[in-house]
Amino acid sequence: MSFDRLIKNIREKQNPTVAGLDPKLDYIPEYIKTAAYEKYGKTLEGAAEALFEYNKGLIDALYDIVPAVKPQAAYYEMYGWQGVRTLERTIAYAREKGMFVITDGKRNDIGTTMEAYAKAHLGTTDIEGEEVTAFGADALTVNGYLGTDGIKPLLEICKTSDKGIFVLVKTSNPSSGELQDRKLDDALTVYRTMGDKCENWGSEAMGEEGYSSVGAVVGATYPEQLSELRKTLPHTFFLVPGYGAQGGGAKDVAPAFDENGAGAVINSSRGIMCAWKKENCAPEDYAQAARREAIRMRDEIISFIGEIK
Amino acid sequence: MSFDRLIKNIREKQNPTVAGLDPKLDYIPEYIKTAAYEKYGKTLEGAAEALFEYNKGLIDALYDIVPAVKPQAAYYEMYGWQGVRTLERTIAYAREKGMFVITDGKRNDIGTTMEAYAKAHLGTTDIEGEEVTAFGADALTVNGYLGTDGIKPLLEICKTSDKGIFVLVKTSNPSSGELQDRKLDDALTVYRTMGDKCENWGSEAMGEEGYSSVGAVVGATYPEQLSELRKTLPHTFFLVPGYGAQGGGAKDVAPAFDENGAGAVINSSRGIMCAWKKENCAPEDYAQAARREAIRMRDEIISFIGEIK
Repeated sequence: MSFDRLIKNIREKQNPTVAGLDPKLDYIPEYIKTAAYEKYGKTLEGAAEALFEYNKGLIDALYDIVPAVKPQAAYYEMYGWQGVRTLERTIAYAREKGMFVITDGKRNDIGTTMEAYAKAHLGTTDIEGEEVTAFGADALTVNGYLGTDGIKPLLEICKTSDKGIFVLVKTSNPSSGELQDRKLDDALTVYRTMGDKCENWGSEAMGEEGYSSVGAVVGATYPEQLSELRKTLPHTFFLVPGYGAQGGGAKDVAPAFDENGAGAVINSSRGIMCAWKKENCAPEDYAQAARREAIRMRDEIISFIGEIK
Repeated sequence: MSFDRLIKNIREKQNPTVAGLDPKLDYIPEYIKTAAYEKYGKTLEGAAEALFEYNKGLIDALYDIVPAVKPQAAYYEMYGWQGVRTLERTIAYAREKGMFVITDGKRNDIGTTMEAYAKAHLGTTDIEGEEVTAFGADALTVNGYLGTDGIKPLLEICKTSDKGIFVLVKTSNPSSGELQDRKLDDALTVYRTMGDKCENWGSEAMGEEGYSSVGAVVGATYPEQLSELRKTLPHTFFLVPGYGAQGGGAKDVAPAFDENGAGAVINSSRGIMCAWKKENCAPEDYAQAARREAIRMRDEIISFIGEIK
């Protein structure tokens, strides 16, 4: 139920991080691309194949030390349905390796349509009485601008499985404050109001580890808000983007954790994916470079928060 | 540039409506499903094939009288990448028939990721120097919770093409008011604030017809807010869901239009798609039933707003 499996995975590996899989062709070593283009041409299919091979190498190098991956839907949709097929294959491969998979899709819609998204990304789809898995991730990021009836269909799935959602509360981008930092007429900010909703939505789907199935996205680039929200949302697990390439450091993300070193998972995408470029190592070593960066990140964060109990 | 092409299409057909393509297996006549399952089995591929054949029939029956279609991404994602391939095929087929295609994806993310969505849905993707179309719709619905830097990448494409976006302002669902109707500390509501942002974002991408490339989603189920927003957002074109199945009638949507009968396009999904079930006609007649309902809807709305000038 809820994020219990993710939390156990984090504790077991003593690593509260998630590897973002936001692949771009630019990040992928030439030898992988060349092989894919030889098979499928310089087409969407060829690009999608290169993306998958690249992801597969990363997952192989990370799965025993990193508890979760977060593929970002946009970078797959950019390569058409062929890219979306790579998203599906990536999710399946990572789950096969025991990783917890968070699809970063920031989906949102009205109730009946949100049901379709819930089935697509977390549940199953009925085809003439057969329940078939479409994408089958463990968690999905969602946007709560439409209110409760856009969240409920997801809760139905979360309550009866070990799936979860992360609602956008305070995002990591520079202009996130335009709406999210505005104060409502009761003097609470929009992000705080959205955070309170997460606590409320989650109250009907609590896990054994003290956190509900309804998590929140809170950016590492706003450590003050991260600290405020950790205090006010005791049952809401945090997904924290913005570490590394976006500017957040281990000190910035430390306030995301509770007194047991639990309660949050920190994402790094480019930092891990492009470690081989930063290291300037042989392209064939890209996955091991990713592993080295994942270890460095893990150790850096653990040095701030101590053992995860 | 901007929504000029949509507006011209609406004027030419004297029909300010868009047919929502939100296909579910339940809506599809048995004979179409049987044929698809015979070819591909009761699988995601079989379901996706049935969806496409059904959509194709609808488009063939509607394209000369309805200016636009709006496929809802969720109902395609529900059938996996195979369903997403049907989304791509549906967009291509409708555009081939001259229809303006609005992908209802409510996408949102931080700047660099939003660039990927912009390329995926409205622009093109670079594959080793070749610009390839991934989904290639004419417009995309988006969620503005992340502020300006989540919108800018779309504007870059809108400014140099005849593409547009619709930002969620006041949605049609029952709980939309939870956040959207709240007042900010300057006494303006969240939806009004988001609407003002649309005017602002759109000011750099104005079309010849007096509307910018940045439209707004405003639900037919809230006619008062529709009327308020029409007055305060003179350059923002409206996409109005909630007519028909969700409860909005022609009288409710009338305030969405300007004094020329322009400025808005009204969506009907289930009303048109499932007309054959409501009529209880032969399944083979489903597309003509959709056409009859589309004509009825057109005439009903035109009777309230008069000629579109």
